[in-house]
Amino acid sequence: MIHNVSSDSPIGIFDSGIGGLTVVKAVQAALPSERIIYFGDTARVPYGPKSQVTIRKYASDDIAILMRYKPKMIIVACNTVSALALDVVEKACGDIPVIGVLKAGAELAVKATKNNRIGVIGTQATISSNAYASAIKLLNQEIEVVSKACPLFVPLAEEGFIDHPATKLIAKEYLSEIRQQAIDTLVLGCTHYPILRRVIEETIGEGIRIIDSAEAVALRTKQLMTESKLLNPARKASAPHLLVSDLPQKFSLLYQLFMGSELPDVELVEV
Amino acid sequence: MIHNVSSDSPIGIFDSGIGGLTVVKAVQAALPSERIIYFGDTARVPYGPKSQVTIRKYASDDIAILMRYKPKMIIVACNTVSALALDVVEKACGDIPVIGVLKAGAELAVKATKNNRIGVIGTQATISSNAYASAIKLLNQEIEVVSKACPLFVPLAEEGFIDHPATKLIAKEYLSEIRQQAIDTLVLGCTHYPILRRVIEETIGEGIRIIDSAEAVALRTKQLMTESKLLNPARKASAPHLLVSDLPQKFSLLYQLFMGSELPDVELVEV
Repeated sequence: MIHNVSSDSPIGIFDSGIGGLTVVKAVQAALPSERIIYFGDTARVPYGPKSQVTIRKYASDDIAILMRYKPKMIIVACNTVSALALDVVEKACGDIPVIGVLKAGAELAVKATKNNRIGVIGTQATISSNAYASAIKLLNQEIEVVSKACPLFVPLAEEGFIDHPATKLIAKEYLSEIRQQAIDTLVLGCTHYPILRRVIEETIGEGIRIIDSAEAVALRTKQLMTESKLLNPARKASAPHLLVSDLPQKFSLLYQLFMGSELPDVELVEV
Repeated sequence: MIHNVSSDSPIGIFDSGIGGLTVVKAVQAALPSERIIYFGDTARVPYGPKSQVTIRKYASDDIAILMRYKPKMIIVACNTVSALALDVVEKACGDIPVIGVLKAGAELAVKATKNNRIGVIGTQATISSNAYASAIKLLNQEIEVVSKACPLFVPLAEEGFIDHPATKLIAKEYLSEIRQQAIDTLVLGCTHYPILRRVIEETIGEGIRIIDSAEAVALRTKQLMTESKLLNPARKASAPHLLVSDLPQKFSLLYQLFMGSELPDVELVEV
């Protein structure tokens, strides 16, 4: 029993910036009748290279903004927050359930691996936190996890260098170590990375299953809403309600890159 | 006459992050006896892709932090702030003189050009603001300015991809348009870019004078301190007093990359 929410309450999703839109897209695809409210902390993005203290403070601000809209559940679309500040979010949410991309991605990867060797790529903070490896080991101690921070993937995705020779070179450099570790599963541990999925797939080579945390979290969300009997009855699909802390010049372009549709109205909030 | 300052007062320098350390290094080289206090807003870096409203708010916070230390002058080492919020800083400084990297770089470029064609590269916000072109035209209307935003140069520099083939490819792509415009002078309109100076020089080709805004602002500072009779009499050179709003894991590594010396004590301040 969750207090003060109904099946028509929105699903709240937040991220350090616009990367979490890949999660919005996946949730919309899985659950087209749900209302989605999204907060992107575009004024303070990126969280990835920052310290844990700062990331925890920002997570606390972010969840406070979403809670004003009385969501029926919260998705932490930011891998960095999922890794370093999930408890901060859970505490602020009370009995509202919280799903982090990280745990959802880890679960799907554990199900997928056949040879018990999983690769994880993400931002500096996510990888240094070792949170994916811990989450995976908690599910199955036998699994070996090979991790690699890929700091340039976010700016390359945002610059739209999807298929650029430089992106291929950088992917080759970042992924060469993991490639040699005989993994059979690779977790995209950053919400920007699905934008570069093709070049990552080509570089890592055939026969390796790619786990997109955005898809994983959408599956978990559907399951949880079904179990809690909080699925929204069929209503017309609508654009997400977008909140951002800054509205940069490139926002509309980036929205199209991530969502494949025109930017709806956006609300500016102060952090 | 500047109130409440002496020749022993510090020179205050601030930037959105660590890029301004190239300015610290240039000022130390030109004026080894000066005390330097540096604030880097590492919790909210980068400013470049953000909106003017947000950049002006951040600039106001940044200068408030430095003013507590009663500086004898302020250097705005951030091109983005110099372009979009210099008036905010000047207002907060009262009769304390303010030098922005942008104006100093523009002045040196105007002196350097022989054919009146200047190229400028910088972040998205700096280039979109057209502030370099305006500053140059104010000095000499005849000069043609060709500008190009190079958003990947900052993350490439911070990743230490100084001499990487991917950096060369990206530099080639960014600089090819400007190369064709018969410029004889190129302004590095972002404090990170001196880190990539060699690849930029190689890509832009021979016979083009590179203007490093950090060096330009150091020259102006020396001139101004001499004119105001505020030069610090010979004292032993010392490490800058460092203030940051976040202390990320890579900070020490980046400090070495920018300064070529070991990280001194750092003070964490809240923004």
